[in-house]
Amino acid sequence: MSDTAVATMPFAAPVEVETPRKVSLVVLSGDMDKLFGAFIIATGAAAMGNEVTMFFTFWGLRALKDADAKATGKTLFGRMLGMMYGGGIEKAGPSKFGFGGMGRWMFGKMMKSNNVSSLPELRDLALDLGVKMYGCQMSMDVMEIPQDTFVKGVQEPVGVGFFLAEAEASHTSLFI
Amino acid sequence: MSDTAVATMPFAAPVEVETPRKVSLVVLSGDMDKLFGAFIIATGAAAMGNEVTMFFTFWGLRALKDADAKATGKTLFGRMLGMMYGGGIEKAGPSKFGFGGMGRWMFGKMMKSNNVSSLPELRDLALDLGVKMYGCQMSMDVMEIPQDTFVKGVQEPVGVGFFLAEAEASHTSLFI
Amino acid sequence: MSDTAVATMPFAAPVEVETPRKVSLVVLSGDMDKLFGAFIIATGAAAMGNEVTMFFTFWGLRALKDADAKATGKTLFGRMLGMMYGGGIEKAGPSKFGFGGMGRWMFGKMMKSNNVSSLPELRDLALDLGVKMYGCQMSMDVMEIPQDTFVKGVQEPVGVGFFLAEAEASHTSLFI
Repeated sequence: MSDTAVATMPFAAPVEVETPRKVSLVVLSGDMDKLFGAFIIATGAAAMGNEVTMFFTFWGLRALKDADAKATGKTLFGRMLGMMYGGGIEKAGPSKFGFGGMGRWMFGKMMKSNNVSSLPELRDLALDLGVKMYGCQMSMDVMEIPQDTFVKGVQEPVGVGFFLAEAEASHTSLFI
Repeated sequence: MSDTAVATMPFAAPVEVETPRKVSLVVLSGDMDKLFGAFIIATGAAAMGNEVTMFFTFWGLRALKDADAKATGKTLFGRMLGMMYGGGIEKAGPSKFGFGGMGRWMFGKMMKSNNVSSLPELRDLALDLGVKMYGCQMSMDVMEIPQDTFVKGVQEPVGVGFFLAEAEASHTSLFI
Repeated sequence: MSDTAVATMPFAAPVEVETPRKVSLVVLSGDMDKLFGAFIIATGAAAMGNEVTMFFTFWGLRALKDADAKATGKTLFGRMLGMMYGGGIEKAGPSKFGFGGMGRWMFGKMMKSNNVSSLPELRDLALDLGVKMYGCQMSMDVMEIPQDTFVKGVQEPVGVGFFLAEAEASHTSLFI
């Protein structure tokens, strides 16, 4: 039924509260190229008027880390993981042609010369646009990555049930 | 229209059969971290009252394998693949920091100390919760992995058309 | 309300224009196995009467390349990327067990003996079935891959907003 039809109906119609359009993303990958995809989709969707939820898990948690945060990990394994996978989002390398960091540097150059924003810039833009970012509580526990190593603006950690409820309310949900 | 409104309507309303809420997953990856993601989402969605369909293809087929099943492969290539990619779901390593099996062992330790279920436990839980798991017929043919190497409870193999129909009926579909 | 009920309604009902069922795919990966998944889903969905949109970005752009196209890249980095990631879709290797090209050859053999179409054949079939394929403008700029290196039938490049609008109109959207 069209909006016009509703407006001219001679009897009381149930008030239709417009539910916001939503997009939800699970971000498991910590690769530069996939994180670019995630943040480009998130900022694009937010700019188009969607509520956007990003749920970061496993390697994707790197995307939330503050570059100046202290090293993570309490146990031996956790500290090893913190060292191997240390640094913030700007340390993410591409899923192909990493070449021990050269791939990241090369892509960074090529993106800059095409006026493409960097990953930290895209993340900041996403936060500015109201994109809601959540760390997966279970991954944070297992990988020993505490909330206080994340950048400002990241929401409190949630579980998979939270993501699933968001996904159900979304017109588009992607696993990245 | 609310349930109450329907119940009090003075004339015969068409009976609305409530269609179940559905979640569908394609699982192409055989990496430990992605399989964790897949089974955590599947068991979470099932616990929230969804019908859940998992469609396993390519490397994802490992997730269905019985640890005690015989080696797979008929042709030389098939046997090579069976050897290289042998073993069940408990042999899956992470997509990063594999270190020839050490990464898997390390993550296993960290998960156990956080009381996170193992992959075989999560798969069993999913089956107990009624999650429907299917092998992709074409991948099984190409990779020479027969149905009798799968754990009990896995459905008969299906094609992509089956998955697409499930996805169309689902509120959330993810490619993992 | 059932179709029958609409047909027997004694007053003018609003004409319902049937909107086509749609499926949308983002293809970021250039791995053989994931491209197979993408094109099998795309051709299956098209055969089932869906409008299908494929949005290729980053490594996925390889899937659009004409095997006979000239090498890509203008800057030093772009030419390096063009050399490292040269060739068309038939050069794509699996995400595991690449073995410097042997994995690709082995999988090719196994697929052929199971009468599975090759990637170029699947792409042609998809185009014949009306699947719409788009390169991501930003990735094409960054990776210095011009439109004239793509096979015939590929649409003009688009941005992420185009994909998001397609995804919103789709019953199933996947990130591959």
